[in-house]
Amino acid sequence: MNKSVIRVGIIGAGNVGGALVALLRDPTRREALLDAATGPIELVGVAVRDVAKRRKDVPNDLLTSDAAGLVGLDGLDILVELAGGLKPARGYIETALRHGVSVVTANKALMAECGTELAQLAHQNGADLFYEAAVGGGVPILRALRTSLAGERIDRVMGIVNGTTNFILSKMTSEGSDYASALKEAQALGYAEADPSADVEGYDAAAKVQILSSLAFGTALQGEEIFRQGINGVRSVDVDFAHRSGYVIKLLGIAERVGESGISRRAHPAMIPVDHPLASVNGAMNAVFVEGVRSGPLMWLGQGAGGEPTATAVLGDLLDAARNRFSGRHDVPFTVDTSLQSVPYGELESVFYISIDVLDRPGVLAAVAGIFGDNGVSIQSMEQSGFGDEARLAFLTHMAVADRANATVKALAQHPSVDRIGACIRVIDGGRA
Amino acid sequence: MNKSVIRVGIIGAGNVGGALVALLRDPTRREALLDAATGPIELVGVAVRDVAKRRKDVPNDLLTSDAAGLVGLDGLDILVELAGGLKPARGYIETALRHGVSVVTANKALMAECGTELAQLAHQNGADLFYEAAVGGGVPILRALRTSLAGERIDRVMGIVNGTTNFILSKMTSEGSDYASALKEAQALGYAEADPSADVEGYDAAAKVQILSSLAFGTALQGEEIFRQGINGVRSVDVDFAHRSGYVIKLLGIAERVGESGISRRAHPAMIPVDHPLASVNGAMNAVFVEGVRSGPLMWLGQGAGGEPTATAVLGDLLDAARNRFSGRHDVPFTVDTSLQSVPYGELESVFYISIDVLDRPGVLAAVAGIFGDNGVSIQSMEQSGFGDEARLAFLTHMAVADRANATVKALAQHPSVDRIGACIRVIDGGRA
Repeated sequence: MNKSVIRVGIIGAGNVGGALVALLRDPTRREALLDAATGPIELVGVAVRDVAKRRKDVPNDLLTSDAAGLVGLDGLDILVELAGGLKPARGYIETALRHGVSVVTANKALMAECGTELAQLAHQNGADLFYEAAVGGGVPILRALRTSLAGERIDRVMGIVNGTTNFILSKMTSEGSDYASALKEAQALGYAEADPSADVEGYDAAAKVQILSSLAFGTALQGEEIFRQGINGVRSVDVDFAHRSGYVIKLLGIAERVGESGISRRAHPAMIPVDHPLASVNGAMNAVFVEGVRSGPLMWLGQGAGGEPTATAVLGDLLDAARNRFSGRHDVPFTVDTSLQSVPYGELESVFYISIDVLDRPGVLAAVAGIFGDNGVSIQSMEQSGFGDEARLAFLTHMAVADRANATVKALAQHPSVDRIGACIRVIDGGRA
Repeated sequence: MNKSVIRVGIIGAGNVGGALVALLRDPTRREALLDAATGPIELVGVAVRDVAKRRKDVPNDLLTSDAAGLVGLDGLDILVELAGGLKPARGYIETALRHGVSVVTANKALMAECGTELAQLAHQNGADLFYEAAVGGGVPILRALRTSLAGERIDRVMGIVNGTTNFILSKMTSEGSDYASALKEAQALGYAEADPSADVEGYDAAAKVQILSSLAFGTALQGEEIFRQGINGVRSVDVDFAHRSGYVIKLLGIAERVGESGISRRAHPAMIPVDHPLASVNGAMNAVFVEGVRSGPLMWLGQGAGGEPTATAVLGDLLDAARNRFSGRHDVPFTVDTSLQSVPYGELESVFYISIDVLDRPGVLAAVAGIFGDNGVSIQSMEQSGFGDEARLAFLTHMAVADRANATVKALAQHPSVDRIGACIRVIDGGRA
């Protein structure tokens, strides 16, 4: 044993930070923590912006406004970064790692931006960098990928990793709400921000996909843009169509192998069969579905957000890092697999659901069908419903390359009888998507 | 680093052992294994009963019929026990642990019988004892309880941990099969043994509950009998009733806190709401649902059996043990919480579904209702369906103590107008059950 006690500093005392401090100071859990960490943990300070603000879980004598001072504290073993954002979090983390201090963070944006670099910095300095809470809140999926599945060849990771959009889509599905009112309700309940774009446009899910992919496939974390489609274009009619056809619409973050050396990472709404394990993951819950060559399908489900669930995930990391400290070791970070090539979204095949509003005139359907044919997209089924002078056409295509489906949609939009393009949503059925 | 290579011996080369050897020898995974173990793993021998038998995954020069010799081999680091059963597996494991050799096993019967003793033996000799594959096949739930949830206070663990019974109940639910023909189909497909009693009578699930409970709550593993009710009494009419009432019948293994210092462990069929995450776990899949005070609900889902999925779980343990070996440490086993008292099944409260066949005569319902009342069980709802001279009565009770529900059933069975007691099944709705 190199150490007799592990000294921990925390940056940020919001919902997660406060809950973490409460967990660490809970007298009924003291013995369990001691066992799990294999020794005592001492909380040396909590850096916050406003030390004057009263906090129910954090005693005043632990508070400091000097985050840089806390990070540079002599004898610090573990830094827990819960401030979020790229700056100044990145600087604090880099300083800590350079001093050999292990870091636990929930910062998905930062990890997606420069996680590979930070992981290497940690490794070079004999420190750990853990970030379980960056994906899926309280769902311990990252540790499972790092440890339980370390020897497994994974084919696909597919997750409901954004609680806000899952809440909205669940409302639209279960109560027939339209997108705008479901969003408003999510905002009223605190599930969605006043500016919901990071969630509803898929940015948050895309960052989480990159983190999942790095652990499942060894793709680098370095701020790469991946394909992203939000849920703001999803309408009640699409949800209804999905329901009638045995599907549910979910915003999925997907990372999957394509052929021998290709990898696709993306976040977009998709129709999945109603009996798929992900289909019944509702409300603000998160779940990650993993397909391994040997393990077969696996799924993890839990609370995707919230102070206490997320703090539980942070605590799991903290205990891991403490155990390692006590035994004078650190975990080796994931190896970047440079042989994997990103496959552009446009080259991926899928069944597509395409819905359009057209003028209800003779000959329109033939013209529309012609456009599908001209673009090499074959139609599997069509449903027509009339309303006034207009008709809504909903198509399911056969397997088609995304570029061709997009070209079809573009050509449809230019046709004089087409009033409006509704949605173009991938359908995931059976194997690939 | 104390070691330059980790030497591994395996006892048993059936489905799981063969798949494990294939995983360890797969050239495309060599680098991933090296990274995950933090060093090379050498497979030194595989002990089998019949060395003459041809095995596709295990080269002949690794085979030996001398299991005791393999266990006693000088310089052995990790023993993987996949033979199953209490004898001679227990002796091999004890010998290995006494020599400081870490043990990975999938032996649920042995762990339920004497796991606490074996874990202490491991700890005293500086060795690890891991048994992920003993519960849930390929589902990595035990590691999550050991690590990710180490700091969490868990309230309840509830799992579908027996694939055979889940297959049978799923068939009865989805296809309206009766119990006998669903069992026959499970046997034809190799999901059920010729003598299916270990599965259908709940013995297997009960052993798994004890293992889950030891990690979630610190209950001792020492061959204690826990309450067990099989699925052999479940009829199609019960499945139909459940469906009409918004429930699904599942065989659940449950460990939960009762009050401040009580613990209940049991395995029995139960009706759960159709929108509960466990309700859509079908076929031979396994899933474990965990309710933590801070984490909220969490669920793990995956293949409950099969050589390759189970071998993946064994490999996860093996890599953990190898990492520990390379860094000269071992995990501390769970601490037995001696303050927890087992609460007898009869004292637990629940809503009960009770179904009986009665002679269709005037006054019978009043008599039957009287029996419920005499035993202090209050009726929530009743459904009557007639067939010929008989009628079937299906009751849902209000919350009642199990002893009273059982006394009611006993008294009903003695009433002259009651032809037959159908089922007495707990209903799990909302919080407790």
